[in-house]
Amino acid sequence: MGADFDIVTLGEAMVRLSPPLFQRLEQTTSLDVRVGGAELNMAVAAARLGLRTAWLSKLPRNPLGRLVADSAREHGVDVSHIVWTDEGRMGLYFVEFGAQPRASSVLYDRAGSAISGMKPDDFDWSAIFSRSRVFHVSGITPALSASCAEATLTAAAAAKRSGCQVSVDVNYRAKLWSEQDANRVITALMQNTDILITTEEDTKRVFGIEGADYREVAEKLRARFSLRAVAVTLRETMSVWRNRWSAFAIADGQVHEAPTYEVEVVDRLGAGDSFSAGFLWGYLQGDPAKGVLYGTAFSALKHSIPGDFRWGTLEELEAFVKGGGGLRIQR
Amino acid sequence: MGADFDIVTLGEAMVRLSPPLFQRLEQTTSLDVRVGGAELNMAVAAARLGLRTAWLSKLPRNPLGRLVADSAREHGVDVSHIVWTDEGRMGLYFVEFGAQPRASSVLYDRAGSAISGMKPDDFDWSAIFSRSRVFHVSGITPALSASCAEATLTAAAAAKRSGCQVSVDVNYRAKLWSEQDANRVITALMQNTDILITTEEDTKRVFGIEGADYREVAEKLRARFSLRAVAVTLRETMSVWRNRWSAFAIADGQVHEAPTYEVEVVDRLGAGDSFSAGFLWGYLQGDPAKGVLYGTAFSALKHSIPGDFRWGTLEELEAFVKGGGGLRIQR
Amino acid sequence: MGADFDIVTLGEAMVRLSPPLFQRLEQTTSLDVRVGGAELNMAVAAARLGLRTAWLSKLPRNPLGRLVADSAREHGVDVSHIVWTDEGRMGLYFVEFGAQPRASSVLYDRAGSAISGMKPDDFDWSAIFSRSRVFHVSGITPALSASCAEATLTAAAAAKRSGCQVSVDVNYRAKLWSEQDANRVITALMQNTDILITTEEDTKRVFGIEGADYREVAEKLRARFSLRAVAVTLRETMSVWRNRWSAFAIADGQVHEAPTYEVEVVDRLGAGDSFSAGFLWGYLQGDPAKGVLYGTAFSALKHSIPGDFRWGTLEELEAFVKGGGGLRIQR
Amino acid sequence: MGADFDIVTLGEAMVRLSPPLFQRLEQTTSLDVRVGGAELNMAVAAARLGLRTAWLSKLPRNPLGRLVADSAREHGVDVSHIVWTDEGRMGLYFVEFGAQPRASSVLYDRAGSAISGMKPDDFDWSAIFSRSRVFHVSGITPALSASCAEATLTAAAAAKRSGCQVSVDVNYRAKLWSEQDANRVITALMQNTDILITTEEDTKRVFGIEGADYREVAEKLRARFSLRAVAVTLRETMSVWRNRWSAFAIADGQVHEAPTYEVEVVDRLGAGDSFSAGFLWGYLQGDPAKGVLYGTAFSALKHSIPGDFRWGTLEELEAFVKGGGGLRIQR
Amino acid sequence: MGADFDIVTLGEAMVRLSPPLFQRLEQTTSLDVRVGGAELNMAVAAARLGLRTAWLSKLPRNPLGRLVADSAREHGVDVSHIVWTDEGRMGLYFVEFGAQPRASSVLYDRAGSAISGMKPDDFDWSAIFSRSRVFHVSGITPALSASCAEATLTAAAAAKRSGCQVSVDVNYRAKLWSEQDANRVITALMQNTDILITTEEDTKRVFGIEGADYREVAEKLRARFSLRAVAVTLRETMSVWRNRWSAFAIADGQVHEAPTYEVEVVDRLGAGDSFSAGFLWGYLQGDPAKGVLYGTAFSALKHSIPGDFRWGTLEELEAFVKGGGGLRIQR
Amino acid sequence: MGADFDIVTLGEAMVRLSPPLFQRLEQTTSLDVRVGGAELNMAVAAARLGLRTAWLSKLPRNPLGRLVADSAREHGVDVSHIVWTDEGRMGLYFVEFGAQPRASSVLYDRAGSAISGMKPDDFDWSAIFSRSRVFHVSGITPALSASCAEATLTAAAAAKRSGCQVSVDVNYRAKLWSEQDANRVITALMQNTDILITTEEDTKRVFGIEGADYREVAEKLRARFSLRAVAVTLRETMSVWRNRWSAFAIADGQVHEAPTYEVEVVDRLGAGDSFSAGFLWGYLQGDPAKGVLYGTAFSALKHSIPGDFRWGTLEELEAFVKGGGGLRIQR
Repeated sequence: MGADFDIVTLGEAMVRLSPPLFQRLEQTTSLDVRVGGAELNMAVAAARLGLRTAWLSKLPRNPLGRLVADSAREHGVDVSHIVWTDEGRMGLYFVEFGAQPRASSVLYDRAGSAISGMKPDDFDWSAIFSRSRVFHVSGITPALSASCAEATLTAAAAAKRSGCQVSVDVNYRAKLWSEQDANRVITALMQNTDILITTEEDTKRVFGIEGADYREVAEKLRARFSLRAVAVTLRETMSVWRNRWSAFAIADGQVHEAPTYEVEVVDRLGAGDSFSAGFLWGYLQGDPAKGVLYGTAFSALKHSIPGDFRWGTLEELEAFVKGGGGLRIQR
Repeated sequence: MGADFDIVTLGEAMVRLSPPLFQRLEQTTSLDVRVGGAELNMAVAAARLGLRTAWLSKLPRNPLGRLVADSAREHGVDVSHIVWTDEGRMGLYFVEFGAQPRASSVLYDRAGSAISGMKPDDFDWSAIFSRSRVFHVSGITPALSASCAEATLTAAAAAKRSGCQVSVDVNYRAKLWSEQDANRVITALMQNTDILITTEEDTKRVFGIEGADYREVAEKLRARFSLRAVAVTLRETMSVWRNRWSAFAIADGQVHEAPTYEVEVVDRLGAGDSFSAGFLWGYLQGDPAKGVLYGTAFSALKHSIPGDFRWGTLEELEAFVKGGGGLRIQR
Repeated sequence: MGADFDIVTLGEAMVRLSPPLFQRLEQTTSLDVRVGGAELNMAVAAARLGLRTAWLSKLPRNPLGRLVADSAREHGVDVSHIVWTDEGRMGLYFVEFGAQPRASSVLYDRAGSAISGMKPDDFDWSAIFSRSRVFHVSGITPALSASCAEATLTAAAAAKRSGCQVSVDVNYRAKLWSEQDANRVITALMQNTDILITTEEDTKRVFGIEGADYREVAEKLRARFSLRAVAVTLRETMSVWRNRWSAFAIADGQVHEAPTYEVEVVDRLGAGDSFSAGFLWGYLQGDPAKGVLYGTAFSALKHSIPGDFRWGTLEELEAFVKGGGGLRIQR
Repeated sequence: MGADFDIVTLGEAMVRLSPPLFQRLEQTTSLDVRVGGAELNMAVAAARLGLRTAWLSKLPRNPLGRLVADSAREHGVDVSHIVWTDEGRMGLYFVEFGAQPRASSVLYDRAGSAISGMKPDDFDWSAIFSRSRVFHVSGITPALSASCAEATLTAAAAAKRSGCQVSVDVNYRAKLWSEQDANRVITALMQNTDILITTEEDTKRVFGIEGADYREVAEKLRARFSLRAVAVTLRETMSVWRNRWSAFAIADGQVHEAPTYEVEVVDRLGAGDSFSAGFLWGYLQGDPAKGVLYGTAFSALKHSIPGDFRWGTLEELEAFVKGGGGLRIQR
Repeated sequence: MGADFDIVTLGEAMVRLSPPLFQRLEQTTSLDVRVGGAELNMAVAAARLGLRTAWLSKLPRNPLGRLVADSAREHGVDVSHIVWTDEGRMGLYFVEFGAQPRASSVLYDRAGSAISGMKPDDFDWSAIFSRSRVFHVSGITPALSASCAEATLTAAAAAKRSGCQVSVDVNYRAKLWSEQDANRVITALMQNTDILITTEEDTKRVFGIEGADYREVAEKLRARFSLRAVAVTLRETMSVWRNRWSAFAIADGQVHEAPTYEVEVVDRLGAGDSFSAGFLWGYLQGDPAKGVLYGTAFSALKHSIPGDFRWGTLEELEAFVKGGGGLRIQR
Repeated sequence: MGADFDIVTLGEAMVRLSPPLFQRLEQTTSLDVRVGGAELNMAVAAARLGLRTAWLSKLPRNPLGRLVADSAREHGVDVSHIVWTDEGRMGLYFVEFGAQPRASSVLYDRAGSAISGMKPDDFDWSAIFSRSRVFHVSGITPALSASCAEATLTAAAAAKRSGCQVSVDVNYRAKLWSEQDANRVITALMQNTDILITTEEDTKRVFGIEGADYREVAEKLRARFSLRAVAVTLRETMSVWRNRWSAFAIADGQVHEAPTYEVEVVDRLGAGDSFSAGFLWGYLQGDPAKGVLYGTAFSALKHSIPGDFRWGTLEELEAFVKGGGGLRIQR
């Protein structure tokens, strides 16, 4: 029997407010309004590739909560399982875009958010996961509160029981929890995890794993947690406006590498989430090499798009990967 | 020896975010950024009339906190007594501007604000008030938290002891506390209060006082709390874009009345605070009649100005009260 | 067995481009982008009231087509039945907002749109309507082209056969067809119509029906076409920025009247479609009187909201109808 | 042999800078850029009605000067006679848009403008006027400087000699000169004037003429200066956003009256200049009654258009005068 | 006897709509409005250098048509020969600005435009060209429709007969016609062509001409069509935001080369048209070497200017070519 | 007894108007409003580092004058010594932001400014300087008018007499005066100067001093004018959007060098003034090496901030100098 959802994600999304045109937050008189959050970004990006996705979250019953749900729905992400509540607020974050040598920066204002009150029994996990192929969550969700950690572990276990694969993007956030806490919870989460997506730095901070090169690191991760696949993204920050971006994965006993893209950075938030979407899209076709290749290209293009979300289509992506067009104006 | 400050105010200010051009909050893609809060609005308006003012508050040590302090300073309000903290966030509020029959509306997001953690000993009250002529606070400040209520009562008592008059604007906010709590705390505050500013409706809700007309209500207030002056603002909402606005005061055993102004409403937030500033400006000259007249005119003009703050000068106000110009273009 | 959709609509939506701040189209340097179209407006408004709605249309496979579908989806309108095509373009319309004595005006640029090539067999009507309670269409859809007229009549007949009620909003557009053509096609459409929504003026132009008053007109309509319900909206244009708005309906042998609202006009496009949504919402509860009352209130509020769509919630509407709040700021 | 220009105007235009959305100049962070100036406004409005117009002025050789000339050219006004100079700056003015009871206001920054250095021999008057039907100037031009006054009188005399009628719009500006100076210069100008356009108030201030009603005032003017036509505009300022507007003229021994229009005021600057254009358009057809009627309608519509210029077409104007459309959306 | 126009161009211009700030078209809520079209861009650029230019086209009688004509007039381009029609619409195009690796892209919406109905007898060719020195057209004009191709060939022949030189910019657009059709029509056009402007790629696609290097290609072109001059522009796309730009020409039996400029790309649309203008400006002075040098510099600077049009002056260009200023702020 | 002000500056500030998004001034329809002026920029930057600063100037009594004073006050700069006048206007300047090969450019409109009428006795110099540690002025102030030159020399002498050190930033502006005049006045100013800040180019133009390298130039300057410190900023303009920036100083018989920063240029105006602030901040701690290091870092970061002012905090600066964060997003 077929599943209803290819990917179900669980996590916080926030209203994202950013001063236009490289202004400092302290000096601005207007803020651009967008929506972002690792798992929602990922669900949107996956939906853009044609996957059926759902996003689980807890939102306050007010216009800001509706704004977030609307924006998920705009991209075709299922929002019917969202829990609406009168407890807690909508989390916000403020983004300042920088220029060398001033890095871009984020000011989070997420304390007291509705989702931080999420509890393990807020969702009917087995009903949801029995209809789904992959459950994806980042390391941010369990970092939001103790009950969020508990809910995340409960969800992963439930997914496993329902025959739904579990995908985790480490995404360590030092503002949310200590490395020790992250280690403890994410290690527990690994027990039910099939696919791990991370960076070299997060691997060191959360798991204390280092190696001769990042391939060794990835292999150590795969082995320690008996994972089906480990994917690692690689960023080189030449300047704030110019980065290099690549990724590779270990799966099926093989290393799959993507080319390195030079990117002019309009907005790099959500790039990692776009990679996750592209990688899982290939992985779900049984082709992790394709996942790495398309995921990297998909997220390289993300850097040129304002906002956390990955506006664009599968057709565009395929034309890009096949090398059509180049950098000249496409008419 | 003369005072350093004519008016010292104590309270919360927030970053105010509003969708432009009558949009709903749920639909907007940008937000106008301004700053507002009853006591800061009042301090700004008073500074605009030439009074030396200070604003006491507690702000988070981040760009949003600085943005608020900058904006106070921009108008010449002293911010040197603000307490900066790493505890708590910057409060926000979202304003939707309406059109008949949709009222404008405000969504507060002030839980967990830095100032809600204010304590009675955060300020050196006697040092401040011994240099000041009036301490002004609204009923919002004690409503923010139990410790804020305690701090407000402490401040008023300290002001009284220092020979500094106390002015209170009732400003009842049902979202912050019950009528019972407001009654208990504001009644206690009245013990040290010299000047009360309110509306007929708030008087009824907070003090349970009604009367044959609003003059009787004001006189009952004056008598019950042995006040030197009671001022009452009067609004008639003909439509969202068109209001009538007036005020009167009881002081020195007399009733002082202002004319009624028809106003085209660009932004009515902060209008009451502008009245308070204009009224105290006159009162401090020993002329409450002038206070009512100029306070009403000053706040009538406020309705035409975007934002909570009362941009404008004393010269303009005087020209307006003297009837110059009318409604034709002033060249 | 229950239906999947409460209301299914069929018609064109366009990208709507309007100069900000009362500018003429000829003078503007930017255009606000929104989406509008009678049946989509109606589907969005109905979804806002909690009804399950779908919108059927034909869209070009390009970013403008996706923009339109995204915006429908953003409000929870089902877009899974949209036909995507490489033939034809996305229709556009340009709105100039006026001020007395200059009326607002619309410049349509819809020739060659993808939907004008719609054919009767583009949709599997019986599969769709067997799962639906009401099929709603306006008189604009059959006016778009001969094949659109044919498709509309085919759809209405199919709906009837499937036991799905048919609702028609006359919406006569002189730019699209002559009164004679409209009379011929809409009269044919009436054979399968249960619910008719119109204005006095359209009734006269399309059906040639006049009467002593609009109630008589409505009754004549009901009788001629054996309708279950006839609803009529009433607008008085006091000035461009200030209108009066009301409606009534004949159903169940009774006349149901709504109060008259004075409205300050931010954007009146889509107001009629919001009425249709509110009316059907009540009608589908078996309470046409409630439909008239809520539909009128719902669409009165629409005038205050930028864009064709009816941003807002059922909770707000209910609070408004019950008289809460008035015109003062809602805090 | 026919003329090349129907109307030639002479005067200053300035770059107009205005804070958007009713902001005070002191508080704004952006300024809308437009161009305005009585005679250029008039030339643009006349060109919009199909008249061949030229604008004479003196502009600084910099981007601001070019911006002004471009904007004249954009509307088809001939700019080939403009004198470009390295002496003097581009004049500016700042407009604040108000709301009752705050009037709109203008801050001029025109000292040291290039045109204030205009001299009588800057233009080849006889070459220009021998090809023109009407020379139009306002009372602002001679007020700019002594040499400007001299140039204006020289121009009017030259026009008269060339058989070109002279039209003067009094437009008294107290900031530029005293009533005495205005009286002296404009009285001298009247010697060569055929057509006078004014208001009741300006007539009193500049000429000291009063009367039982404005018709008597106009007749006194006509008689004192042996004018062919006197036109008077009439404004009633009900509120800043709502005015009444009308006009009448005395010509051919008759009084011609226009209807009174209620206008919702988006931007009333340039309304008088639009009237002048419409009036002369009729007058040049030998039909001053038509001039009054169309001029009033043309300028009534002007109030709805942002900027000093009269964007719009003759076709629109004719449709409006004939009563088509009304205030409903024109589709 | 001297000519009235230095250059007359014939072609389509469109309203250009672009999302600000690198947004995708699908995600934007506003569009910047500008005007562009190869021949109009060229006429504007030439007018900016002091040449007398006219633009021939066919425009719909509506605000969008007027907007286009206004913008031509704003730059001093003669629009008196434009044919206004009630048939057909105003063409539009949508531009997305990209960032590496996402190229900028253009979505044309020009089907059914007024000009696509252009016929050979819409203009009085001999009257126009007998007063002109050069007739310039791009390969886009004949690609618009069969009657446009016919009109273009008719125009070129008429120009030739009138002693007016013919200049053609190949500008192959694959979306408008096949390489075969382009080859057939443009080859026919070459019979009356004196000056050809192209790129290496277009030469290969349209004429099938290749060579050892681009000089050989240019020489083959010159020889095959007996041209007086062939100019070729050269672009190297280092990244979307950074290009290299140069050009050379063969004329008078010599090769003339320009330096290569590195450009930071704000907006590269219209750069080629600016080159054509600069090249013809030199060529018309009898100095093709100057044409190449100034044309390249003029168009290198174009990349820094938003919109298709070449805002700027001859003075600036001369200062730039002479090396003044460099890249430091010019104060 | 301690001083009240660490740094007092004297000079002109102007309202700065700039077209957004790389537009030419001639083409823009809106202007961003900011404030700038060498000495005010410096005072703001110094205040941002925690120094107590005052700005002396002469401003017109109008909204533009207040806007400037407000913006100084917003950053905590003391404005109580500003002289308000009804003579003269507010100076303006227009900034065009460029892209390679088009340099950014500034159009000054400062003739007739209020401050150009500044006289030596407009300020009570000894009262001010007796409370201050450093008096800082740039070479622009004496260039504004003869009386401004006189006032500047008077001020420097008074500062010296009051025991307040004098700091001068050469800042030669060719538009304001000749090299001869600058030489004469600034040489006179050197008699009372302790600290000189300049560039290699200005040193050559104003003092005619050249050398084998810039260190030799600096040493010659120090020796000729017996200075305590000479600081020199160094810019390499790789492209308009990418510069290299560094500085060094001679003080205490030593050369102190800063690292070279590559900067992505958002807005380089005010960078030099930020260096001056940072340098004096270190110098006033008795640590000129720290001054060079922090001043260079502080001003390198300035290039990323829109406007002339140095929004940011000492905490940020210290984190940056210590190398924290790098160019990745700071969360």
